[in-house]
This record gives sequence, C-alpha cells and structure tokens, in this order.
Amino acid sequence: MKVNGVAMRSIWPVGDAAVAVIDQRALPHRLATRTLNTAADVADAIASMTVRGAPLIGVTGAYGLALALRADASDAALEAAHTQLAGARPTAVNLRWALDRVRAHVAALPPARRAAAAWTEAGRIAEEDVALNRAIGTHGAALLRELHARAGGGRRLNVLTHCNTGWLAAVDHGTALAAIYAAHDAGVPLHVWVDETRPRNQGLLTAWELAAHGVPYTLIVDNAGGHLMQHGEVDAVLVGADRVSAAGDVANKIGTYLKALAAHDNGVPFYAAVPSPTIDWDAASLAATTIEERSAAEVLQVGGLDAAGAPARVQLLPESTPIANPAFDVTPARLVSGIITERGVAAPARLTALFPDPRRAA
Amino acid sequence: MKVNGVAMRSIWPVGDAAVAVIDQRALPHRLATRTLNTAADVADAIASMTVRGAPLIGVTGAYGLALALRADASDAALEAAHTQLAGARPTAVNLRWALDRVRAHVAALPPARRAAAAWTEAGRIAEEDVALNRAIGTHGAALLRELHARAGGGRRLNVLTHCNTGWLAAVDHGTALAAIYAAHDAGVPLHVWVDETRPRNQGLLTAWELAAHGVPYTLIVDNAGGHLMQHGEVDAVLVGADRVSAAGDVANKIGTYLKALAAHDNGVPFYAAVPSPTIDWDAASLAATTIEERSAAEVLQVGGLDAAGAPARVQLLPESTPIANPAFDVTPARLVSGIITERGVAAPARLTALFPDPRRAA
Repeated sequence: MKVNGVAMRSIWPVGDAAVAVIDQRALPHRLATRTLNTAADVADAIASMTVRGAPLIGVTGAYGLALALRADASDAALEAAHTQLAGARPTAVNLRWALDRVRAHVAALPPARRAAAAWTEAGRIAEEDVALNRAIGTHGAALLRELHARAGGGRRLNVLTHCNTGWLAAVDHGTALAAIYAAHDAGVPLHVWVDETRPRNQGLLTAWELAAHGVPYTLIVDNAGGHLMQHGEVDAVLVGADRVSAAGDVANKIGTYLKALAAHDNGVPFYAAVPSPTIDWDAASLAATTIEERSAAEVLQVGGLDAAGAPARVQLLPESTPIANPAFDVTPARLVSGIITERGVAAPARLTALFPDPRRAA
Repeated sequence: MKVNGVAMRSIWPVGDAAVAVIDQRALPHRLATRTLNTAADVADAIASMTVRGAPLIGVTGAYGLALALRADASDAALEAAHTQLAGARPTAVNLRWALDRVRAHVAALPPARRAAAAWTEAGRIAEEDVALNRAIGTHGAALLRELHARAGGGRRLNVLTHCNTGWLAAVDHGTALAAIYAAHDAGVPLHVWVDETRPRNQGLLTAWELAAHGVPYTLIVDNAGGHLMQHGEVDAVLVGADRVSAAGDVANKIGTYLKALAAHDNGVPFYAAVPSPTIDWDAASLAATTIEERSAAEVLQVGGLDAAGAPARVQLLPESTPIANPAFDVTPARLVSGIITERGVAAPARLTALFPDPRRAA
C-alpha cells in the first residue's frame, strides 16, 4: 500500500543478498526502515518485534534462512539457521511453517544451489501472501461497494474496524484493511472509525496506515463504537480474525465481541476478513477456545511520545495492581453477517460450501 | 470510606474557618490533601479540578461561600463571591444549585449572622449527600446479598463496574460503589472487575478507592468485560448514571451501553445506582439526548508516572489526528434490570411507582 503516494510493502528484497523491513517499533511516530544482511539480523528483527504480524514474521524468517545459506549452505548450517530463526519467536506458528517450507524445498538440492533456491522460495511465500490478501481485498471491496449502493450511494460509507489488520501485519494489503484499501482505491467514498484497541493500541498503527494511504478515518476509544452505531454513524463493522470456525465463530482481538453485539443490536452488518488458512475446518464452535492471558504490563504501561517528542512510557498504576488481560474473545456466528475470504464472502452457514475441499484451501 | 483503615471523606471542615479536600489530581499515584482558607482557594480548587464530581463540587462551593462571608458579609460581597465561585466551573449544575441554596438561606439574615449560617448550611448539604448515598448503599448491598445468595452463596460475587462512582466523586460512599462498600462491609464476599474507562481512565480512581478500602478487585481494559461475561466471570454489572429517564433509560459514561449489551446477551443483571435528583421525570426516553463531545487531547494524551516516578503524559498520535470523543452513551431501559435509588431498587417500568410524587423526591 502507499505511504504518502509511494507504494510500499512491509518487507522487500534489496538486491539478492539483503532484505529491508519497516521498523514497526518506531511506528506510529516515525517511519524507519532497517536492512537485514544476515540470519542473525533477521533473528534479531523478529525477536525484537521490529517486524510483527504472523505472515510478515514467516516471510522474514524465510528470507533469513536464505541469507544463512548464502554464508554457509551445508546441512549443518541449514539446521542451525532453522533452529536459530525458529527460536526468535518460539510460539509463532507461521514462522515455523515458513522455515519448514524453505528447508524442505532446498534440503534435497546440492549446497551450491541452496541459497538461490531458498531466496526464490522466500519470495514465493511473500507473493502468495500478497495474492491471498489482494483477493480478500477484491471481494471485500465488492461487498463495501454493494453496501454503499444499498445505502443509496449518497454519502460516504462508514466502516468501523478494531485492531490492526493492515499491510503492516502482512506483506501488503492486509485482511480487513485490504478490503478498505481496495474499495477506497476503486472510488467508493469511505470513512473508517478506528478503535484504539486497548491494551496494545494497535489502532494507532491502523490510523497511521490509513493516514499514509490517504483513507479518511477517525480514531475513537474502544468505548465509543456502540454509541456511534446507535446514532446511525456506522454502516458496517469489518475486522480480521485470529481463528474462524467452520460454522463461522470468530476469535479475534479482545473487544471484538462487544462491537459485534452493538452491530447486531443496531442492524449494522458485521464481517470478518480472513485468508482461508485461518479457518479451523475441524471446529464448529470456538466457545471453548482457551484464550491467551497476557502480561499486566500491557495494561499498566502506555507508550507514546514525551513532551520532548522522544518515545516514552507512562505507568498507570503500580506493578502490583491486580490485572486480568485476556488477549482475544470469541464472537459467536449468530452475530456474524459474513466471512470475507480469498474465494468470496460467505454467511457463516455457507462457509464450508465456499470451500468444498477444505484441505485444498488457499 | 476508608483509606488503609482510616475513615475519610473527600471534603471535611477544619475547625470553623477552613475546609480540607483530597487533591484528586495527584490520584491514583499519591494521596495529598489541600486546605482551603478562602473563597479564592475554593474557586481555584474547583477550576483546577483539585476537586471533581458533581456533589463534591457543590459542597465545596457552598463552603467557599461561607468562607467569603467570613471575610465580608455584605450583600455586595455575597453576590461577588457567588459569581466568582459559580464561574469556577460554569457548566456544573450542582455547583450553581448549592451556591443558590446557601445564598437564599443567608440573604435575609443580618450580615453578622451570615457566615455562621452559611457554614452550617454547607455542612447540611454535605450531610444530605452522604445520607442519600448511604441509603443507596444500603439498598444496593441488600440486592448484592440477594444475588450472592441466589448464586448459592458458595463463591464470591463478581461485580463489573465502569467509570468512578465512588466516594471521591461525592462526599462519601458514592453511588454504585456505595452498594459495593456496604455489601463488603456487611460481609458479602465480593470481587470487582474495574473497567479502565478510556479515555479519562476514571477506573484508575476506582481501583485506588477499592484498594484503599480493602475491597478485592481486578483492573481490566474496557474491551475485556464481554469476554468475562461469556465465561461466567461476572454476576452483575453495576454502574452509576449522569441521567436516568422516568422509564429507566440510563445515560452514563461512554461504553456503558456495550457492557449492558453483553450483560443482556449472557443473562447477567445490569443495574444503575443513582440518587433520585438524577432522574429526569419529564423524559420517558433519553435516546435523543445530546451527547457532549469532548476534546481530542483526552484521547491522544495519557497520564501516568514516568520512569523516574514523576507525573507525566505521553502523546499517542499527533494533535492533528482526527478524533471523535463522545463522553456519554445511553443504555435503553430494555437492557436495564433495575435502578438502585435511596428509596430502594426498581425495575425500569416500576421506577415512577417508587416515587409517586417525583417533585418531593430526595
């Protein structure tokens, strides 16, 4: 997507021996990039959260393996680099998947051909992610165009979103924001209500993305969305998801369920945009999903810029304050109008029909 | 209520020529008090938000008028002090009401008797507020005891609250928190989920109050309550209100409506605790209420302590960021289980029956 008119991705190759990434720790305050020349650079970028977002971490790791093989393409070096990179974010499923895929792709090749093959495969993983998200954007934009037309087409379409589902978390486009970018670029007059998304304030990244691309938006606290829906100020709620069940339950960032309830209470359609690998075809319901409990520090410390414009954090209450910090919640399918996928939009009850052979999805 | 075992109010007379208040700007980080010796001190305390909360501002202003009359009890001085104090927070209805009441009480008296009479009247206003809130606490505690018994009495009762409705905003007790304090003091095993309450984070004051009084609590972000209700972790939602309609619509801090929706969706009872002067007997619905839009700075700046432990603010995004900041929302009566008043608890449909002659309420 664009940053002040210039097309940009969250990661891109620099020649054939380095990759550059956006340093997401500096956002939303400053756009900084970092060049990664070695597998160690990549491991550090992943561990330090210079890069974040499951697809982006996977692609970055894949490039890291290619960089390692450029230095030493032996079997031992391949294994060592795989271990090093996987250990940078041990719980990142997508990272391990991408590393496994590159390793499997090059393991049978003679060492001299491994680095180039790994580099090509990393690029392929990136392009596949971009294609998946572009397709979600195309289908989502058609939906938003239809919603705009249905509303008479006379005024801008107001879309409320939660968390960050944009190109910063992917390679390009994003998921829910892919639909917004595609609709905006196609001339649908849009305005986005951006939930701040406490405790980690990912809404600030969404605000930064939308501002950089030129999409009109307004930042709100998470408490405000229901009131806006009561007053006809929201035409659709559009979120991403960490997991979707075959029956259309949506596990997503904490607070999503509250927005889905308000949407339902006010006749506002609620959509989740996901690539099909996010759909758990074995689960009908997600009600029993174990929800990750995250640290108290996420709630008690807030980051921003201090009076001098330098990055700083403030502590809201003492470290000893009793805190609960569930990271996700589950929106039951009965509150979901549709799931936007790379194959199109389906109501929860028709999701499996859109993927008759789930094993071949994506 | 208590601060580490010592009974405390938000304002108290010091002899008969000064009042002391808690400096609420230093909370939740530090308990500081300030002695107000003159009407100018009082006006400054009100304007600087050293004191906050409608009832407390009214009582503080009333004492300010008494202090002014101690210096000069002439008609001209009475008028000048009334103007000065009312101007400290021009939109505070309760402040003007209290000042009018003290002025009316002393205007017909000879100047020599005015200061003492005003002092007594200010104390009376304070005690009336305390009595009103104590009665709300008594009725609310009976309700919480009943909910606990109904749940089998075998485990603690989990109550979720939003914003700060405690003794800091009143003279003592508070409204929703009055019920919690009274139930806790009477031995009902309680635990309170405290919504952070963005953007102004009044939940931090609630957390401070509960900790100081010894009531078990857990602070959560505003996004978390729905998830907790889905998992049976909330037995009741208990909030205050800025305005309640005769039919039981509840205007309260932004985000209340979302919690009411989640409560309704999960069979959790939702109550608002208010003194009857907060009830608008002329309005059936509050749906058309004009909601105050507050400053972008409230959303964009967050206060806390810096790394050195000094009060500091961080800026989340540039001042130019488009922001919407509605301060309140309206929860329709259909989502309200009951209104807790000084006369008892009534379902929305039975509220007027509890106050057969509204004009004589309180």
